[in-house]
Amino acid sequence: MKKKHSEAAETAAKLHPFYRGKVQIAPKVPVNSVKDFSVWYTPGVAEPCRIIENDPNMSFEHTNRANTIAVISDGTRVLGLGDIGPLAAMPVMEGKALLFKVLGGVDAVPICIDEKDPDRFIGIVKALEPSFGGINLEDIAQPKCFYILERLRREMEIPVWHDDQQGTAAVTVAGMINAARIVGKPLNEMKIVMLGAGAASTATLRILIMAGVNPEKVIVVDYDGIVSGTTDELKDRYPFTYQLLASTNGEKVRGGLETALRNADAVIAYTAQPGLLKPEHIRLMAHDPIVFAGSNPVPEIWPEDAKAAGARVVATGRSDFPNQINNSLGFPGIFRGALDVRARTITDEMCLEAAKALADYAYSKGLDENHIVPSMDDREVFIEEAVRVALKAIEQGVARLTATEKELRLIATERITYAWKLIETMMESGLIPPMEEADR
Amino acid sequence: MKKKHSEAAETAAKLHPFYRGKVQIAPKVPVNSVKDFSVWYTPGVAEPCRIIENDPNMSFEHTNRANTIAVISDGTRVLGLGDIGPLAAMPVMEGKALLFKVLGGVDAVPICIDEKDPDRFIGIVKALEPSFGGINLEDIAQPKCFYILERLRREMEIPVWHDDQQGTAAVTVAGMINAARIVGKPLNEMKIVMLGAGAASTATLRILIMAGVNPEKVIVVDYDGIVSGTTDELKDRYPFTYQLLASTNGEKVRGGLETALRNADAVIAYTAQPGLLKPEHIRLMAHDPIVFAGSNPVPEIWPEDAKAAGARVVATGRSDFPNQINNSLGFPGIFRGALDVRARTITDEMCLEAAKALADYAYSKGLDENHIVPSMDDREVFIEEAVRVALKAIEQGVARLTATEKELRLIATERITYAWKLIETMMESGLIPPMEEADR
Repeated sequence: MKKKHSEAAETAAKLHPFYRGKVQIAPKVPVNSVKDFSVWYTPGVAEPCRIIENDPNMSFEHTNRANTIAVISDGTRVLGLGDIGPLAAMPVMEGKALLFKVLGGVDAVPICIDEKDPDRFIGIVKALEPSFGGINLEDIAQPKCFYILERLRREMEIPVWHDDQQGTAAVTVAGMINAARIVGKPLNEMKIVMLGAGAASTATLRILIMAGVNPEKVIVVDYDGIVSGTTDELKDRYPFTYQLLASTNGEKVRGGLETALRNADAVIAYTAQPGLLKPEHIRLMAHDPIVFAGSNPVPEIWPEDAKAAGARVVATGRSDFPNQINNSLGFPGIFRGALDVRARTITDEMCLEAAKALADYAYSKGLDENHIVPSMDDREVFIEEAVRVALKAIEQGVARLTATEKELRLIATERITYAWKLIETMMESGLIPPMEEADR
Repeated sequence: MKKKHSEAAETAAKLHPFYRGKVQIAPKVPVNSVKDFSVWYTPGVAEPCRIIENDPNMSFEHTNRANTIAVISDGTRVLGLGDIGPLAAMPVMEGKALLFKVLGGVDAVPICIDEKDPDRFIGIVKALEPSFGGINLEDIAQPKCFYILERLRREMEIPVWHDDQQGTAAVTVAGMINAARIVGKPLNEMKIVMLGAGAASTATLRILIMAGVNPEKVIVVDYDGIVSGTTDELKDRYPFTYQLLASTNGEKVRGGLETALRNADAVIAYTAQPGLLKPEHIRLMAHDPIVFAGSNPVPEIWPEDAKAAGARVVATGRSDFPNQINNSLGFPGIFRGALDVRARTITDEMCLEAAKALADYAYSKGLDENHIVPSMDDREVFIEEAVRVALKAIEQGVARLTATEKELRLIATERITYAWKLIETMMESGLIPPMEEADR
């Protein structure tokens, strides 16, 4: 396992300086001669400016704003590397922009902001609103990420998304929907243990409840054991999520990890604590236990150990094991759908639709213990997600545009296949040189 | 004339919503299968992050920062439209980004910022430094544009450029160098009248002086006549440019436009006052007068009227007359050169080198009254500019990299021809549909 990672690291260290960046700016309009600049720039451009001045909604028609988002970080919690700062975070944001384009046809601008104060950071992001149709927040430390997201969602008229929250949640819930199908237990009867009470865990919990899970049957375990106590006590420890946490643990169980796991149907871990789960923990669970071990790159328990201890379905964040719970299955399709109807926000209900689209797609391809979520190679899945997310946005009244399912499928297909054609054309024409050239 | 403009406006109003944006994000690296994402994204990407964390200069090697700038406006002074706001200013910034890529091979991200307070605006731009290798400020109202530029240049470690200042100056000075050659008068003996004391005029004056013009022989005329008085008086009226203005008008002439123009060798107008110059004004000037009428789209005097009144060389900002003083001849090549050596700033000396490159290029193509600057079709001129700008940056110690002239020419050629190939390939493959499709 470690070897594989150091190989990727070595290749990345060699290829990044060869290509010097993973995304670039490309034209979207023809330039046959410099005369065309009189349409794209002065004097002609004044007319689109006037049109937008008279009707701000026209910014979605006359510029690329309808397809452009910003991938924004302050560099305070980058991957497992911690607070490495905005400059060092750029390779991740560029990588994410690449994924947004290649998988979702979304133009994402990587932006790292040199500002750690949450209020000033919020002010900066808000000031960028005229330039973008959406904001993807990334790799921001807890707990300020909750505060930043909450305020920006309330104060901006475009979707603001923190991928470590709704993004992780959508894909995890997709996996849980199919895991439940495999073990034949309905979600609303399951006893579920959430390990960790951070951004990923609490967002997943919120959307699981929306999917039918009974919060009283959920037990959240944090660093010091089962989360319990009065609402006021919880408010002190979890100022942003105490209401959600207070709705769990209906039986007011107290104790540690073992107590929580006894007879549980599923455990979902987002702890960043490799090896936290032992085989004996799995053996405490109910029959056919479901184990999601989300710590990355080293999971809370290795899949083979979990299986040996009786786990029926095991998922991790790793690409070299079955059932990779990978955010990249979510955000490209979800933003595609949100942008296609010019949504003002991305609601939890839209995330749940994305989860269902992912689950149904995997189901249609043939469900088994090792295929509870689609693979990233299943590129059509992003189209399905986009359509269902867009339809939900229309239904909920957060969309600026309406369209039929058929129209939405056409639009999403066109925009996603455009991106495939773009990268293929660039590779074939040599505009993107092959990796082998880096060895010369 | 008006017809031509309304034609461009009509075409722009039709084509902008057809293409929905003028620039987009494109990949710069190959993606052969989703496995490649383990190099471009997690887990591999952690390695470039670590490398940059250990050596911040590596951000120029491992990301696209070395070729990326931001085109930033607050929308307070857009073209001749005034304070139309950041949303309505986006078409201009996108157009500029298109020019940057197509002519200079520079990746420019259009960003409109919803913040009118200069200090908060400065704070936002500074916070964006980790993401960009340079900043192009655009369409910001006076006088705050002076203050914003001055502070950002001092407080940032990447070039900050206000195109309405150094950009206009570089191309104007290029024109003046060749106009002087045509009339056979050395720059340092010329009596020059500057009409207007705004951003374009004062920056042009600064670089003209650097090019050899004797400031004592320059007379600046503002709304209320010839600029004169004690330094303290000037300081009150021109807090950002009083020192420069105090160095002019060696004979302490007082009076109005006519007094200033009497016996002048050249008049350079940046007034935004169409028709300000009358034929009788031109007749007051010395033999073979040079007239630069920069107001746009309607100049201070129409070329045919100036010629009829005796002008030898006439230049305007319009593409439908000879001698278009067009900023687009400057910024793509100047930024190309600055980025190629990772310059920390763009000095006035670098601008003067760009002016000389432009002048020499036009000279080499055959100088006459109607060809004092290159045409934008002369795409090689941007390479020449880039090389000379880069060499000057190295000489002045503001470059992070050094290289020989030959190497610099190779780099600039490669990067600019890449952009030509990109747009050609996209047009040929249908990724950029032809304009005729908008009529279907």
